Amino acid sequence: MTTPTTRAECQQLDFGDPLAEFRAEFVLPDGVIYLDGNSLGALPRAAKERVRETVEDEWGQGLIRSWNTAGWFDKPAVLGDRLAPLIGAGPGEVVVCDSTSINLFKVVISALRMRPHRKVVVAESASFPTDLYVMAGATGLLDGYQRRLVGQDGQQLEDVLDDDVAVVVLNHVDYRTGHLHDMAEVTARVHEHGALVVWDLCHSVGALPVRVNECGVDFAVGCTYKYLNGGPGSPAFVFAASRHHDAIDQPLSGWHGHAAPFDFTIDYQPAPGIDRFRSGTPQLVSYAALEASLGIWERVDLDALRAKSQAMVSLFTDLVEQQCAGFGVEIVSPRGTGGSQVALRHADGYAVMCALIDRGVIGDFRAPDLMRFGFTPLYLQYVDVWDAVQALREVLATESWRHSRYASRATVT
Amino acid sequence: MTTPTTRAECQQLDFGDPLAEFRAEFVLPDGVIYLDGNSLGALPRAAKERVRETVEDEWGQGLIRSWNTAGWFDKPAVLGDRLAPLIGAGPGEVVVCDSTSINLFKVVISALRMRPHRKVVVAESASFPTDLYVMAGATGLLDGYQRRLVGQDGQQLEDVLDDDVAVVVLNHVDYRTGHLHDMAEVTARVHEHGALVVWDLCHSVGALPVRVNECGVDFAVGCTYKYLNGGPGSPAFVFAASRHHDAIDQPLSGWHGHAAPFDFTIDYQPAPGIDRFRSGTPQLVSYAALEASLGIWERVDLDALRAKSQAMVSLFTDLVEQQCAGFGVEIVSPRGTGGSQVALRHADGYAVMCALIDRGVIGDFRAPDLMRFGFTPLYLQYVDVWDAVQALREVLATESWRHSRYASRATVT
Repeated sequence: MTTPTTRAECQQLDFGDPLAEFRAEFVLPDGVIYLDGNSLGALPRAAKERVRETVEDEWGQGLIRSWNTAGWFDKPAVLGDRLAPLIGAGPGEVVVCDSTSINLFKVVISALRMRPHRKVVVAESASFPTDLYVMAGATGLLDGYQRRLVGQDGQQLEDVLDDDVAVVVLNHVDYRTGHLHDMAEVTARVHEHGALVVWDLCHSVGALPVRVNECGVDFAVGCTYKYLNGGPGSPAFVFAASRHHDAIDQPLSGWHGHAAPFDFTIDYQPAPGIDRFRSGTPQLVSYAALEASLGIWERVDLDALRAKSQAMVSLFTDLVEQQCAGFGVEIVSPRGTGGSQVALRHADGYAVMCALIDRGVIGDFRAPDLMRFGFTPLYLQYVDVWDAVQALREVLATESWRHSRYASRATVT
Repeated sequence: MTTPTTRAECQQLDFGDPLAEFRAEFVLPDGVIYLDGNSLGALPRAAKERVRETVEDEWGQGLIRSWNTAGWFDKPAVLGDRLAPLIGAGPGEVVVCDSTSINLFKVVISALRMRPHRKVVVAESASFPTDLYVMAGATGLLDGYQRRLVGQDGQQLEDVLDDDVAVVVLNHVDYRTGHLHDMAEVTARVHEHGALVVWDLCHSVGALPVRVNECGVDFAVGCTYKYLNGGPGSPAFVFAASRHHDAIDQPLSGWHGHAAPFDFTIDYQPAPGIDRFRSGTPQLVSYAALEASLGIWERVDLDALRAKSQAMVSLFTDLVEQQCAGFGVEIVSPRGTGGSQVALRHADGYAVMCALIDRGVIGDFRAPDLMRFGFTPLYLQYVDVWDAVQALREVLATESWRHSRYASRATVT
């Protein structure tokens, strides 16, 4: 594709967009170009009704009976199965529950127990921080563990891998830069050393096709409130390859992960399969919105999604390069080979982003100097990319950001 | 109070009920007498609008900006402060997050770390099972812990308390029988031995006034979907006495419990105070319903609540005794000195309960033979108690339960 040089040419791309129909399924506020769907996805119109139904009909009218009649108890497994194709997992390999942080804790402890004689965990210094915090929390409960950080003091993955490594936790897509790991290659490398790999898919699920089983992945976790559009804080998911299920021994052993939760026995007996990752009672009203969103995802061609994502990322990058040259902006992200986001470095990035938000172009900011723009192929148009760059150019050229209200923290991922 | 002997007398009690006004604030399905609010509370009318607003306005229109403009980030603390008076806690001592199971895990590990040289945990054999499962999960991560069970082989609390005990986890109200512990007395007894106490308030919060600080309690956990009417699986809470806050070191150290979550630093630094019990991103749509429900609770006189609860429990018990004699029913619960629920034992309890549910009288069943009836003073009337007993008598007298469809599992707490 040659980069369009006019808005009309962008419009032509929209006319030919095979995913164009999906935009109408989302609520998009007037006057807003939303480039932060990598942080919180937009509201699917169907979610409004599905949430209303859950609250008013299932809870209000069905009351306790809805645990059976509305299938509440099985929602974590049912939604897991519906999400599975988005990450290349099979039925019974994904369960939707809790938060990414809590699911990672369960997975890390499980993985360490599967490699009891290895006392090293590996993570990335550029990791989304909660992964590091949770790993520290998990290993802090056990004796003698050591952490090695890829990216610290220039260390590469191959520098830290050896036969002492039990588990490697990696972010499929870097939350700041959008850098994308080669999942197959990296997983194979970790396995060569006999370690287990956990992929954090928060910034890749719904942004590009993920193929955990094709890549031989052991475990994965991720959230559903970014590209998956499940709503603020919607429940997270956990994947475990079925070959590991019998070995999984996770310590957040709540009654919903019990083999027979309604027998109310004194001793814990883990449920067979992926359900043993469940813990307490699921927050069902939050599941309702995700359920509606998955109804959209089931109709999405993930290869078309990836193609549009890459085209939008390239378009944005090219236009910024052409139209914002000389304004102190540096392009940090890979050009179409990474995730569905672009980071721009600018010394006054925070103020520039605030000025953009004031104009209705919503991205976010990551300290100290990165402006992030997410490109969600389901509800963004090529003209949005064009218009966003025009707004950015104007803010930079007029230095209007010097007068912005610096109002938004704009930092929640 | 002399027990009413007619429905008209019950109606008189309703006319004089100081809590009568609250009934109109709840959705109650036609033809249903709902005696399972101790398992899942009824829908507050205000919750419908608050959820809609969260979904359509805050998420749909505000998008990522609502983390600031709608106060999303602070919801766990803000709702914690609003819930605190219901359990006798102070501001900054309660946070709303995750599930009871997960919060108990955090609390148990924290407590064990505060008593590092003691290697015994105490629980009850009659405990709601998830507490036992979670304690086993927690101690299973650590070396050399032993569990002692009150109620097993006739053991009383005083039999198992000694200077080896680190933490005692107790259910304030027994989920099956409704037995109520004397929180002040038991807490003092545990403290005499230098151990810490954790109270599970799931079956007492919103059923009766709870006074954690007056009783010197160390930690408490509980859910909000029973008497508090927060909706199916609504987020749970955790209380820690402020004197312990600096010592709390909990392992589910996710970014929302970090002192500066938006600095995205590599190392975990716990937030000051109760916020360090937070972990991942809160499921905000589920918080919305609870928020509406707390708006009702702020207007409830807890002493009046307790008085009505005891009156309803006594009324039900007396009427069952008078009107269901000879049908093989045994009253298992304390008569107004326990929680806000009554358990009846019957050899065919499951079938009897199914038949009752078919008639619109909804209670639940706990294996092997207990029928449970919950009395929620905010939305139940004395005539409901009367009508429920008439239905029970008719089912038992006609043995209509022999033909019931046995359809409902009716076993979710």
